[in-house]
Amino acid sequence: MTVRGAMGLPVVGMVGGGQLSRMTHQAAIALGLSLRVLADKTHDSAALVANGVEIGDHTSLEDLQSFAAGCEVVTFDHEHVPGGLIEALEAEGTKVYPSAAALRHAQDKIVMRERLSGLGVPVPPFCPVATAEQLAGFAKHVGWPLVLKAATGGYDGKGVWVVGSMADAEEVLSSGLRLVAEQFVPLQRELAAVVARSPYGQAAAWPVVETVQSAGICVEVVAPAPGLSEDRALEAQGLALRLADELDVVGVLAVELFETADGLLVNELAMRPHNSAHWTIEGARTSQFEQHLRAVLDYPLGATLMTAPWVVMANVLGGDDADGFDERLHMLFAHDPALKVHLYGKEVRPGRKIGHVTALGDDLDDVRRRAREGADYLKDGQWPS
Amino acid sequence: MTVRGAMGLPVVGMVGGGQLSRMTHQAAIALGLSLRVLADKTHDSAALVANGVEIGDHTSLEDLQSFAAGCEVVTFDHEHVPGGLIEALEAEGTKVYPSAAALRHAQDKIVMRERLSGLGVPVPPFCPVATAEQLAGFAKHVGWPLVLKAATGGYDGKGVWVVGSMADAEEVLSSGLRLVAEQFVPLQRELAAVVARSPYGQAAAWPVVETVQSAGICVEVVAPAPGLSEDRALEAQGLALRLADELDVVGVLAVELFETADGLLVNELAMRPHNSAHWTIEGARTSQFEQHLRAVLDYPLGATLMTAPWVVMANVLGGDDADGFDERLHMLFAHDPALKVHLYGKEVRPGRKIGHVTALGDDLDDVRRRAREGADYLKDGQWPS
Repeated sequence: MTVRGAMGLPVVGMVGGGQLSRMTHQAAIALGLSLRVLADKTHDSAALVANGVEIGDHTSLEDLQSFAAGCEVVTFDHEHVPGGLIEALEAEGTKVYPSAAALRHAQDKIVMRERLSGLGVPVPPFCPVATAEQLAGFAKHVGWPLVLKAATGGYDGKGVWVVGSMADAEEVLSSGLRLVAEQFVPLQRELAAVVARSPYGQAAAWPVVETVQSAGICVEVVAPAPGLSEDRALEAQGLALRLADELDVVGVLAVELFETADGLLVNELAMRPHNSAHWTIEGARTSQFEQHLRAVLDYPLGATLMTAPWVVMANVLGGDDADGFDERLHMLFAHDPALKVHLYGKEVRPGRKIGHVTALGDDLDDVRRRAREGADYLKDGQWPS
Repeated sequence: MTVRGAMGLPVVGMVGGGQLSRMTHQAAIALGLSLRVLADKTHDSAALVANGVEIGDHTSLEDLQSFAAGCEVVTFDHEHVPGGLIEALEAEGTKVYPSAAALRHAQDKIVMRERLSGLGVPVPPFCPVATAEQLAGFAKHVGWPLVLKAATGGYDGKGVWVVGSMADAEEVLSSGLRLVAEQFVPLQRELAAVVARSPYGQAAAWPVVETVQSAGICVEVVAPAPGLSEDRALEAQGLALRLADELDVVGVLAVELFETADGLLVNELAMRPHNSAHWTIEGARTSQFEQHLRAVLDYPLGATLMTAPWVVMANVLGGDDADGFDERLHMLFAHDPALKVHLYGKEVRPGRKIGHVTALGDDLDDVRRRAREGADYLKDGQWPS
C-alpha cells in the first residue's frame, strides 16, 4: 500500500511510544518523513514530540489495523505485539518490518535458542523447562547456579533469575511462565554486534561495542569494544550479518554476545533500534535510527564509520529526585560543554532509563569518565567522589 | 513565568513554522524539551513534525499572547513579528529572546546600518533614500551601479536590487518601500560569522564560513572558510561577538560579511538559527539549533569545535519535478552512503529552499563535490555532467 506524506515521501509508522520511537522520529525529520506513532498514552516519550500520534492498544488487531491504514510501512519500538496480530496485518497486505516470522526470534527465547542451535551459532547450553524434574535433569549437566529466563516478555533484567539450587528455583517454576534454563556462563564481558538489513538484502554493521551491565540493566556502552582483536570483531559482525540474513530481519538487529574464554556466545537478539547503539547518534556517520528507517523503506543503507576514535554512551537512570533536571542540566552543561545529553521526557522512577549521555574523543579513559560523570550527575545531582 | 513540561523542563515556544523551527525541534527532543510552534498553517515544515503546534497569525497580538501563555520563553524562526507586538509581550512579563530592542537590528536595515556605523563597525557606504534627489546625491559619492534594499521584509535576494542608473532605479523608488541605498561593493567573497549568546552574557563562536550565493540565494557553505587567515578569522569572530554583546542579542546571531581588498564589511544580521550554520548539525559538537535553545534558556553554551576538518553544506532548491523525491533519495543514498540529507517537508516550488545536504571529510575538493552533487541531484534527478 502506498501512503505518502510531505514531498511525496512514504509514511512510516512505529508501534510503541517509547524513547526508541522518540529518537527514530528525530531521524525521520531529517529525511523529510512523517513518523506516525502508535502510543499507549498521550504522555509517552515519543507521543510528546511527534505530530502523527495515535493512541491505541498494540495488542488489539483493530487498533493496529486502523494505525496501519495510515502508514506505508509499519515497524516497532518493542517486541510486545503478538505474532498472530502481525501475521494478520501481513495477510491483509500491510508491509511490516521486521516480519512476524523474523520477530519471533526476538520475542521468544526458546524459539531463538533452538533456531540458533540449528544454525550452528554458539549459544549457552539451554533447555526449555516446565517441571522441577526437567530442571533437575538440566542442572546435572551444567551445575548450579544456572539461569532461568521467561521465554517471552522480559526486558532490562526483568524475567531473568540466577538460581543457586532447586529450592531457589521453586518460586519461578511455579509462576506458570514458559521458561528456559541456561548455563550460568563464566563470561569475561558482554559485547554487542549491531547491524541493519533491508528487504533488498543489503546489510551494514557498526563497530562491535562492549556493553556494561549493572543489575541486569545496561549502564554503559563503549565503541569500539576496547582490546577486541580484529578477528574477534569480524567474527561478531559476521555472525550478526549472517543471523540478519538467515532470519530475514529487516531493520536494525542487535546481537548481544557473551565473550568467554572459549569464544563468543549469543545471549539475546533485538530487532529494533537498541540501547547498545545509541552512541551512533553522534558517534557514527549514520545513526541506528536513520538506518532503521532506511532499512524498512528499502533505501540503500548509510555509512557506519565512526566520527571519533572512542565513543562512550552512559544511560541516565532515574533517581530519587524527579524535579531537579533543569538545574542539573545547567550544572552539567557548565561542567562539560562537549557532552551530548539525551533526555526522554519520561516520568522519573528509580532505576528507570530516562536518558543517556554520549562523550566522544581520542582518549578512552577521559571519554569514559566524562560519560559516567554526566550520567551519574543527571541521576541525582551528585558528582562522583 | 514558569511553564514546565516533561521532567520539569521549561517549555520553549518558537514563532514561525519553517525549517528553522523544524530543525530546532529535532534539537529540543534530545534535550528532553517540548518545543511549541506557532505556525501559519498545519502543513508548515515544523507543524508537520512537532506535537505542540498552534496555528495562528504572528502579526496578531492576541494570537501571540495566547501562544506565549503556554511557554516559558518565546523565540523566533523569522524576523517578521512586528517590534511593537514583541514589546507588548515583554511589557506583560513574557521572556522573549531576542528582545524587541535587539531584533530591530535584524528587522530594519536602516536601523542596523546606523547603529553599526555608530559603533565603528565597518559597513558599506549607505544612505536612506526616499526620493530621486537623495539617490542621485548618494550616487555622486559611490557611483553606479549601486544597491537598493528594502529596509524591512526582504529575504533570499528579495527586496534587493542592483541598479545601474537613475532610470533603472525609478520603479523601485516609486514602490513606496522604505529604502536604503548602498555602494555596490567589489567583494572577493562572502563570509559568515555565527555566534550565540545567553542572557547571562556567555557567548560562543563557530568557525567562520564562506557562503556562496547564486541569484541572491545561498547555495553553499564551506566550513571553515578556505584560505582565511587566522587574523581575519579572529577579526570576524570578534566582530560578531562584539555585536552580540553591544546589541544584547540572546540566541544565535549570524553576521553576513563581505570580504574585500580593504577588509571586512558587515552585510546583514540575522538573530536566529541561520542557513550559514546548518552545517553545524553534523559538523560541530553543538549544532546551532541546540545552541539557540541553550542560549534562550540561559543554559551554559555547548562546545563549537568541528567534528571533521572540512564540512560543506549545499542547499537543495526546488526544481520542476515535485514528485520524484522517493526515487531520488534511493539513488542518492546508493551513490553516497555518507552524505547527510535534510528535507524540510515543504511544498516544492522552483528555486525554493526545500532541504540541504552536508558532506564531511579530510579533502576539501572531495567534500565540496559530494555536497554539490547531492544537492543538485535531489533538485531534479540529474547528475552534474
